[in-house]
Amino acid sequence: MSAEPAATGLRIVLVEPRNPLNIGAAARAMSNFGFTQLRLVKPYNVAFQEARSAVRSRYILEAASVTASLPEAIADCALVVGTTAVGHRDLHLPLYRLEAAAPMIRTQAAESPVALLFGSEKFGLSNEHLSFCHWLLRIPTREQHGSMNLGQAVAICLYELQRDSAVETQHFAGPDPILAADEERITALLLDLLERSGYVNERTAASTELKLRRLVRRLGIPASDAETWLGIFRQILWKLKQDHPA
Amino acid sequence: MSAEPAATGLRIVLVEPRNPLNIGAAARAMSNFGFTQLRLVKPYNVAFQEARSAVRSRYILEAASVTASLPEAIADCALVVGTTAVGHRDLHLPLYRLEAAAPMIRTQAAESPVALLFGSEKFGLSNEHLSFCHWLLRIPTREQHGSMNLGQAVAICLYELQRDSAVETQHFAGPDPILAADEERITALLLDLLERSGYVNERTAASTELKLRRLVRRLGIPASDAETWLGIFRQILWKLKQDHPA
Repeated sequence: MSAEPAATGLRIVLVEPRNPLNIGAAARAMSNFGFTQLRLVKPYNVAFQEARSAVRSRYILEAASVTASLPEAIADCALVVGTTAVGHRDLHLPLYRLEAAAPMIRTQAAESPVALLFGSEKFGLSNEHLSFCHWLLRIPTREQHGSMNLGQAVAICLYELQRDSAVETQHFAGPDPILAADEERITALLLDLLERSGYVNERTAASTELKLRRLVRRLGIPASDAETWLGIFRQILWKLKQDHPA
Repeated sequence: MSAEPAATGLRIVLVEPRNPLNIGAAARAMSNFGFTQLRLVKPYNVAFQEARSAVRSRYILEAASVTASLPEAIADCALVVGTTAVGHRDLHLPLYRLEAAAPMIRTQAAESPVALLFGSEKFGLSNEHLSFCHWLLRIPTREQHGSMNLGQAVAICLYELQRDSAVETQHFAGPDPILAADEERITALLLDLLERSGYVNERTAASTELKLRRLVRRLGIPASDAETWLGIFRQILWKLKQDHPA
């Protein structure tokens, strides 16, 4: 995990959430990505602590604060960011895509508390809620279907906040490539098998050998699998010899 | 949206999913990010098409294929990638973090179909399922709580596949800064207000003016708000003058 300060500095604020399953799902995503501070503003259903969706994250629901108004929930925060699926409302606020918003939130959260606001499942954040925000972010969904499930939206934002772009190009080293000698042993065994099984005839034997050698090289057998393949072909060859002694 | 080919080349394969709500949530995330090909292997509950969580994405559930085995679901794919929360199983396969996996999937999906496999909510992908995979990816969750909700895991993977890293540093231009002349008009109005309201006395007037000028400059008033602030202060000044004529 990167960015521990972002995790401790961020408050996830669910404003008037309606479905306890979504609150539980938000808590689970928080636990998955190492965030702990959940704040609920006027939750529709106060029985949210029982949400079955809060798998292994009940500790977050139990510590969650519940307030009657948004200003109370964000009072200690120096930056308040709203999330929106952006309809045709004129938002009067700078709007960033999540990719651009995350580094700004991370930087600020390392200094002082940041509130990330999610509106209700049905209506999102109201214009009044938005007036408490310094700026807005949107998850880059399709224009034709922008509105996300609340639990999924929280999960994506937290993933992006903990995302490590240094990993993008960090590809695992491929397996060690097989040595030419082992490749040739496999080729020879296969050729023996093909001759004994009648795949090769005298007339085409030479060209088959070349074709087979190229086929084997194109496989890209990992070095660590060479002995296994040799064992497999030796076993088949042994069986063929047993059934058809020379 | 970027990467249309990735969206059309990718098949989301849910292997033995148990909860229709999760299937619906996966479909919704697919619709949010522009993916359409859903395949279900032995879904536990065949009534998944009724899932209420499939908000505005029933068209994906209706077109989803249902197969009795994994090989049938992936037969037309040239790359099969499994998802895992990685426990202590020895996976025998290359394992990439999502950030590194996404560009490889995008590249391949532009050429030929790619299957992205998600296991059941309870058990994930079995060792048998994993044996059909070319490699694995994991979402970078905390080691202490790796296992994600199925719908959230699908949403995060699809977000990452459509993510545009070029946007990361693309910050919106801040608002146009106020002109010095307007800043000074606001300062003068405020000074007038402070003198008339008794905040300033003769002895400290000069230092107050300097202090006020610095205070106003530190506000960083956007140019587009200058007239509004001037109007507000003029109105208050008018009222003060009316109540206390010189």
